[in-house]
Amino acid sequence: MSAKKIVVVLPQLEDQYRSRIRAAAEAHGLEVSFFGTAAESLPALADAEIILGQSPELAQNAPALRWICTPSAGVNQFLGEGVFASPRAVLSNSSGAYGVTIAEHTLMMILALFRQRPAYDGIVARREWKRDLPVRSILGGRFLLAGTGDIGQEIAVRLKALGAASVLGVNRSGRNPKNLFDRVVPISEWESLLPEPDALILSLPGTPETNHLLGARQLSLLRDGAAVINVGRGTVIDQAALEAELRAGRLCAALDVFEQEPLPADHSLWSCPHLLITPHIAGNMTLPWTVKRIVELFLEDLENYCAGRPLARRVDLKKGY
Amino acid sequence: MSAKKIVVVLPQLEDQYRSRIRAAAEAHGLEVSFFGTAAESLPALADAEIILGQSPELAQNAPALRWICTPSAGVNQFLGEGVFASPRAVLSNSSGAYGVTIAEHTLMMILALFRQRPAYDGIVARREWKRDLPVRSILGGRFLLAGTGDIGQEIAVRLKALGAASVLGVNRSGRNPKNLFDRVVPISEWESLLPEPDALILSLPGTPETNHLLGARQLSLLRDGAAVINVGRGTVIDQAALEAELRAGRLCAALDVFEQEPLPADHSLWSCPHLLITPHIAGNMTLPWTVKRIVELFLEDLENYCAGRPLARRVDLKKGY
Repeated sequence: MSAKKIVVVLPQLEDQYRSRIRAAAEAHGLEVSFFGTAAESLPALADAEIILGQSPELAQNAPALRWICTPSAGVNQFLGEGVFASPRAVLSNSSGAYGVTIAEHTLMMILALFRQRPAYDGIVARREWKRDLPVRSILGGRFLLAGTGDIGQEIAVRLKALGAASVLGVNRSGRNPKNLFDRVVPISEWESLLPEPDALILSLPGTPETNHLLGARQLSLLRDGAAVINVGRGTVIDQAALEAELRAGRLCAALDVFEQEPLPADHSLWSCPHLLITPHIAGNMTLPWTVKRIVELFLEDLENYCAGRPLARRVDLKKGY
Repeated sequence: MSAKKIVVVLPQLEDQYRSRIRAAAEAHGLEVSFFGTAAESLPALADAEIILGQSPELAQNAPALRWICTPSAGVNQFLGEGVFASPRAVLSNSSGAYGVTIAEHTLMMILALFRQRPAYDGIVARREWKRDLPVRSILGGRFLLAGTGDIGQEIAVRLKALGAASVLGVNRSGRNPKNLFDRVVPISEWESLLPEPDALILSLPGTPETNHLLGARQLSLLRDGAAVINVGRGTVIDQAALEAELRAGRLCAALDVFEQEPLPADHSLWSCPHLLITPHIAGNMTLPWTVKRIVELFLEDLENYCAGRPLARRVDLKKGY
């Protein structure tokens, strides 16, 4: 019987990380091949047992697959019918690799909204010297984090360190992870918390349960001037309802994710006031620390796999995370 | 003899703060009057002994003045000849009220430069969906802070809390305030540290000694891609030399202060790449916390004044801070 095979499709991998993966694989008698694109890897997929890669096309073309690890945190692409050619395959993600970079993006956007960046962008573009707009601070600020996983936790730690007055959380269970939050409520009760925060931060996965969780009624409960920041999935917000609040000048927002991506070039959001748009960059793989973590997490689960233990980051394909 | 008089010219003061100042004044048998502008206060200045206000015009028109407290941290406006009509007047500032708001501005700008905001601003303006630019993080980052006063300290605390790998300082004495910095060197040795940081942050006062401290030679010592952030005074940087580095694409920068303010509308910096401009807003008084601190610091020195003790924030008019 030939050696079991690992296929890695991750062009961002520097040599040091390829070496680490190769060493770990060889220690378990596994062969490993590296590819820059899914297309290039196609011939190797026929007898691949393990894959580290982002594209569902990889799973579709790997009939002997037992485990595919995506370097992303989100797994929506893997949830449809017919994604897995192998009935025995399981999926894991790289949840834990993106908390730091998304938390730093979120801090930047909280500060940008609290410090009137949308208005000052216009002032600077017109070369004016206007400087008297009221600003707010994280020090003493009140925050509500919908989503208390790795991302929410990294955000909460930072807000506390910067002197936030309150950091509340919302999740499915109502449990308070590592006691990082001042209080956590289950999603069923979250509307009671919406009048509180200066900023509402969403880091929820895109599932049927979270679809349009933040709709017109929930938005209306937020205080005047509240900031809405979405770094999870775009479907969690009723985008049209949010746009109406922004155009009315009642709320401000920073959106990194959208109901449809790429956001169509003719979409009205592009010119919406009180809004900062980024093209889904909060948690991409362009931070070197993130690539390092993806490799570390994969190697941790490779040890689990080879020892017959459950994968630490296995995804429940029914729940979608 | 009539009661000693305090004149307060600070339109930002809410009623709660006027009441606190009035109560403290009355406890010492002092009369206090509040004005929205220096012009309105002119008739009251004739016998004012104490002034809380920002304009040097106040000192020019107060022959009986003993103490003027400016709500600013910077005091350049008070350093010229003929500012004080009274030979016995001393000046104090509100150093300590701006550290929080300037530190939050600085964090926002570090993150904006590390996360490629200048490039992404263009991408978003063109409604593109490009998202693969390399980014950097405060976690593991290296920082050099020129200026270790209230502002530098508030920045240092935050960078440490966010996981910075190193936070070095530069000041006149080489002393390490509260041991907040990993290492502090005197200005005479600062060039040795310039090759180190991912970001250089300047919070120095504008004095003859700091004039063009960061010139062409010092800029050339910074590593490729380093970020320069100035929240102190514009004269500390040789602006033309920095602009040349930015146009060459070797450095990136966020400037809140300039050699000439307002920055003239036809100045080439307005269209300089790799640069984020703000119109001297990092430390203005529009954060409620800052107004609260200004009042607290003034009341502290009012107690000192009335007890015949030295003022805690007295400015040395020769040194200029």
